[in-house]
Amino acid sequence: LKISKKDYSFSNRGKTLEDELNEANEYYLSNDIAVIYKKPIPIQVVKVDYPSRSGAVIKEAYYRTPSTTDFNGVYQGKYIDFEAKETENRTAFPLKNVHLHQMEHMNRVLKQNGVCFLLVRFSAFDRYFYLPFAQLQLFWERMQTGGRKSIALTEFEEQAIEITPKYAPRIDYLKIVNNLNA
Amino acid sequence: LKISKKDYSFSNRGKTLEDELNEANEYYLSNDIAVIYKKPIPIQVVKVDYPSRSGAVIKEAYYRTPSTTDFNGVYQGKYIDFEAKETENRTAFPLKNVHLHQMEHMNRVLKQNGVCFLLVRFSAFDRYFYLPFAQLQLFWERMQTGGRKSIALTEFEEQAIEITPKYAPRIDYLKIVNNLNA
Ligand SMILES: [Mg+2]
Ligand SMILES: [Mg+2]
Repeated sequence: LKISKKDYSFSNRGKTLEDELNEANEYYLSNDIAVIYKKPIPIQVVKVDYPSRSGAVIKEAYYRTPSTTDFNGVYQGKYIDFEAKETENRTAFPLKNVHLHQMEHMNRVLKQNGVCFLLVRFSAFDRYFYLPFAQLQLFWERMQTGGRKSIALTEFEEQAIEITPKYAPRIDYLKIVNNLNA
Repeated sequence: LKISKKDYSFSNRGKTLEDELNEANEYYLSNDIAVIYKKPIPIQVVKVDYPSRSGAVIKEAYYRTPSTTDFNGVYQGKYIDFEAKETENRTAFPLKNVHLHQMEHMNRVLKQNGVCFLLVRFSAFDRYFYLPFAQLQLFWERMQTGGRKSIALTEFEEQAIEITPKYAPRIDYLKIVNNLNA
């Protein structure tokens, strides 16, 4: 496995993948290119206080497991839906990072002719891949039928589309949507 | 203003409009008709405890103002995005129930060729209206140019599409999407 380490002048400077994608989405939004948002994390609120003269204060709440993906929205009439994952792993993306209910959700989206994909960052190399859901599904089925429980970086190199970071937006994933759905 | 009070055999039994729409969306989802969800309410988490042997407990958090609409998803390749509002008012829907940032969001969605609308329940009469965003925008502009700050029920009767509750799903709003976008 040979990996060429890249050196980008516009580094992510310790940002999370989510931060980077929020920045891309802000760019798309403010330039009237697309309307795509990160969904809020679902939280179950148990106890709320109402102190006088101020708003509600949540005093007890719990994180709930999201039943869908991270991001969705609209781009030129297309419904866009994707999950973003980063890994520190240097050779493969472990499929345990994707949950069954997310696979089921993306499968339903695909049936409705939505544009659906996984966006993976290999953080050690600052490399980004756009994996269409149809491809992800094949790797998932391989795992379910006793095969390996991860997707090798080399498999990303062969079967996913690499996103080369650039300036504004750094992670221009809609360019891939264009190329694949033109 | 003459209002014919209706008597539905399948009443909403004290459910909120949000409950009813969640039920419609569950029906659509389980019948492979569409994939549409209520977005979680955005919450700003300030303090989290990690008691031993159990998950995170949020001890201080605040509700944030949503920057978008209530519901979005995909239906037969179309991006669907709408805001749901109920009013106890018997003659009009006060426009103060819709926020500027929601109008801006829906305007952006329309520019991206998404299907965008307001779904209003006049709870006193158990009546439901689907108001396309383009119509809502005209009423909003009327308000901004010094006109009335609400949409009369009679205006809904004339310019919106009424949804007659039925059985499974009770509020079948995608039927209107079909009729308007066929
Ligand atoms: Mg994620
Ligand atoms: Mg609402």
